[in-house]
Amino acid sequence: MNHNPQSLSLNLNKKEQTPLYRQAYQELRRMILHGELPPGFRLPSTRLLAHRERVSRNTIIQAYDQLQAEGFVTGRLGAGTYVAEGIAIPPADSPSSTFDPALSAWGRRVLGHAPGSRHGRSRLEIDFGFGRSFSHIFPYDVWRRLLARYLSTDDIMLSRYGSVAGFNPLRQAVAGYLARQRGVRCAPEQVVIISGAQQALDILARLLLAPGDEVLVETPGYKDAFTLFEVNGAALVPLSVDDDGFPVEKIPPECRARLVFITPSHQFPRGGTLSLPRRLTLLEWAKTRDSLIIEDDYDSELRYDGHPLAALQGLDESGHVIYLGTFSKVLFPALRLGYIVLPPPLLTPFISAKGLVDRGAPTLTQAAVADFLAEGHFERHLRHLRKAYGERHQALVEALESYLPGRVHFSSVPAGLHVMLYLHPSCVEKEVVRQAAASGVGVYPGVPFHLQQPAPPSILLGFSGLSAEQITEGIKRLATVIPAI
Amino acid sequence: MNHNPQSLSLNLNKKEQTPLYRQAYQELRRMILHGELPPGFRLPSTRLLAHRERVSRNTIIQAYDQLQAEGFVTGRLGAGTYVAEGIAIPPADSPSSTFDPALSAWGRRVLGHAPGSRHGRSRLEIDFGFGRSFSHIFPYDVWRRLLARYLSTDDIMLSRYGSVAGFNPLRQAVAGYLARQRGVRCAPEQVVIISGAQQALDILARLLLAPGDEVLVETPGYKDAFTLFEVNGAALVPLSVDDDGFPVEKIPPECRARLVFITPSHQFPRGGTLSLPRRLTLLEWAKTRDSLIIEDDYDSELRYDGHPLAALQGLDESGHVIYLGTFSKVLFPALRLGYIVLPPPLLTPFISAKGLVDRGAPTLTQAAVADFLAEGHFERHLRHLRKAYGERHQALVEALESYLPGRVHFSSVPAGLHVMLYLHPSCVEKEVVRQAAASGVGVYPGVPFHLQQPAPPSILLGFSGLSAEQITEGIKRLATVIPAI
Repeated sequence: MNHNPQSLSLNLNKKEQTPLYRQAYQELRRMILHGELPPGFRLPSTRLLAHRERVSRNTIIQAYDQLQAEGFVTGRLGAGTYVAEGIAIPPADSPSSTFDPALSAWGRRVLGHAPGSRHGRSRLEIDFGFGRSFSHIFPYDVWRRLLARYLSTDDIMLSRYGSVAGFNPLRQAVAGYLARQRGVRCAPEQVVIISGAQQALDILARLLLAPGDEVLVETPGYKDAFTLFEVNGAALVPLSVDDDGFPVEKIPPECRARLVFITPSHQFPRGGTLSLPRRLTLLEWAKTRDSLIIEDDYDSELRYDGHPLAALQGLDESGHVIYLGTFSKVLFPALRLGYIVLPPPLLTPFISAKGLVDRGAPTLTQAAVADFLAEGHFERHLRHLRKAYGERHQALVEALESYLPGRVHFSSVPAGLHVMLYLHPSCVEKEVVRQAAASGVGVYPGVPFHLQQPAPPSILLGFSGLSAEQITEGIKRLATVIPAI
Repeated sequence: MNHNPQSLSLNLNKKEQTPLYRQAYQELRRMILHGELPPGFRLPSTRLLAHRERVSRNTIIQAYDQLQAEGFVTGRLGAGTYVAEGIAIPPADSPSSTFDPALSAWGRRVLGHAPGSRHGRSRLEIDFGFGRSFSHIFPYDVWRRLLARYLSTDDIMLSRYGSVAGFNPLRQAVAGYLARQRGVRCAPEQVVIISGAQQALDILARLLLAPGDEVLVETPGYKDAFTLFEVNGAALVPLSVDDDGFPVEKIPPECRARLVFITPSHQFPRGGTLSLPRRLTLLEWAKTRDSLIIEDDYDSELRYDGHPLAALQGLDESGHVIYLGTFSKVLFPALRLGYIVLPPPLLTPFISAKGLVDRGAPTLTQAAVADFLAEGHFERHLRHLRKAYGERHQALVEALESYLPGRVHFSSVPAGLHVMLYLHPSCVEKEVVRQAAASGVGVYPGVPFHLQQPAPPSILLGFSGLSAEQITEGIKRLATVIPAI
């Protein structure tokens, strides 16, 4: 640059949002760091510089003060201000040399599993995206009232870190709800509030798995769980599910899995329910092998024909089942609250680990959800949801039967927020997804959910964010791009 | 048990909250699982059982329906209902045999670092606990209004999963705030919203460290960071800080640290600020060694004498500094929101990892904080905080000088929410904490923050949850238990 210090000019811009003293400070700091103002250089007096820059003297005094507080200049007002010694940044080797740090083995595995970018999706007219909720059903007035209850000035609840295991009234409300509605047997102390299933699976994998340990999983299954187990060094042992869920009798005799991850109430994403004999056989298997079963009960509240089936956890008498549930599907996804029910020996390890990696969920939200449950709003909301989603599920099934008769297979169990559609083996899944998108319909490839190779062609349809009319129209359009066999 | 099926009695309790059909279902289920009702056993007709139990027939029909749906019984109404085959739980080896799963090496390290229980603390009349905020200062009315803005029925924001990297308007607002107030140089895309520093440190340790890798840390320092690095397999290299912060010139020449974790703006917990020459030397060191510096700027907003010093990140020209900040100290701890500014090459790995272990922070809270920043409430709130906490800091310093003159040492920098008090080397720290508690004053041992052995006797005083009067009274009482040398 070879800047001449005598002609020091700060290029101040009075129209900028940044205060003028701040601009002066930043510019002088830059010049010092880049050696344009050398060590020992005497800065112009504040009066002179203010005059030259046409700003108030106070502006320059403030800038000099800040430079002095940070050690860029020395000296006192009046006695001259000098650039400090030994603080220039050595010139960079190349102007654009940005350090690219090496990643750990874990980091490389995570990157290897990173999803590609999802360009163009937002334009789709009818999007069968999974995991949306139908926002019009949510009782916003109740929710707002419950939040406001805890936003008063005399409440100390917000001013301290919450309990790592969760807000106690919420833990109690969840334990009561699970006992009544899901047949889960637990004390409130066994309930820990989490941000979601992924946080829980990550902590469990780290607490329980050594590198190379086997984990039994369903295929198709929950792909983020696959990734979590894999990046944490586990070896997946997948078994293909059928209409009765996870085929326990096909567990290889030599299998040494320390964990089994399953979705017994409503197999994700295929559909179907784990039969009672299989439940009991699996519990017995876990008991003789010292294995733990993780039961992901992600959407069991959403059954549209009578009562949901009780949880596997309620059959366990020896502490071999870990139970996972979430509020994301039944309240709203962006809430980021779930819960885990742990056998007592795992409580201290889990809570210690969670305290270390994430101090706990926001107290305010937990307090509002606790009241939402305790005051009966939750079970009332569930009734509304079941009605609304049940109608949409029926619209979807009817549309599939009308427009694609005999051309696709799917589980007929009226439950959940999605349907996994199996196409004829000759179909090219990617082509169906692409052509559907071209006609304004978003459907999602089944491949990532399958561990078997080759995966049977299939697509995932989430229906919870669409109206019955949109669903019918979407399937009508989809039928035009699925080849008639 | 040798229960006689013919005298089947369900012990229904009409006063319980659980519906009667549910009680009947649960009791029958229990009897079937425990073999009291053997496979093939014919249940009494619904009419007969209802009569015997003095409940409506519909109650028993519902119970049988649920048992049949779950596979415990077979048969049709009218044709007889039979206990299904092969579903009894084998008798437990011992009645209280709860499985105690083995933990991984990571799990054992976490347990080894788990804090002991904190019994009896809540009784303390004057508690110098760290990390509290003074709830009366928080603008609850503004906050309530901002939250309510996003709780309208036509807003789809709540009904989808948020972006893993954070709510975009909040990332923009944070980038702008950091540029104006902290001299941080970054694009909004480099800002990722996190639940707190611990989540960020856990992810960074996993992304960047191989087992045995060295991490340079300050002592005394942030103990949860020590634990996070250690449980993730790192070897800590601690350097004792002085009044100018981390002694960069004492880094051992053979040190191969991949990470440096420091608190340059306000050394935690000792106090003091990293001098400019040390900042520049450290940056140069990191550059020649391909190391990364994690700058934890946990409370830099809270300076009570003029402007806070600019962040180290702003001096970095080659992507060697990761910047961490939090809203816990300046809004409220239970909010659980912080932010990290990453060099561009680390963005994809970090966001991928975060997406895997925790899908992202709650959108509603992020939207409210974004507006809180963008509409100027935050900087106004900071001015109030600085005034309130500055007064409390001054009260603490004055009380220490009045009641403990020459008997303790502490950093005089007016900043932060705590003071670390160094006692005379002959003092027994544990005794001071115990005796203070006995006189109703909560102070916290300094040992866990120190990695040097033996640690100099010290106690931590958080002042942010107390009034000036409580602070004065607390120090007066503390003076009676600290021996005059």
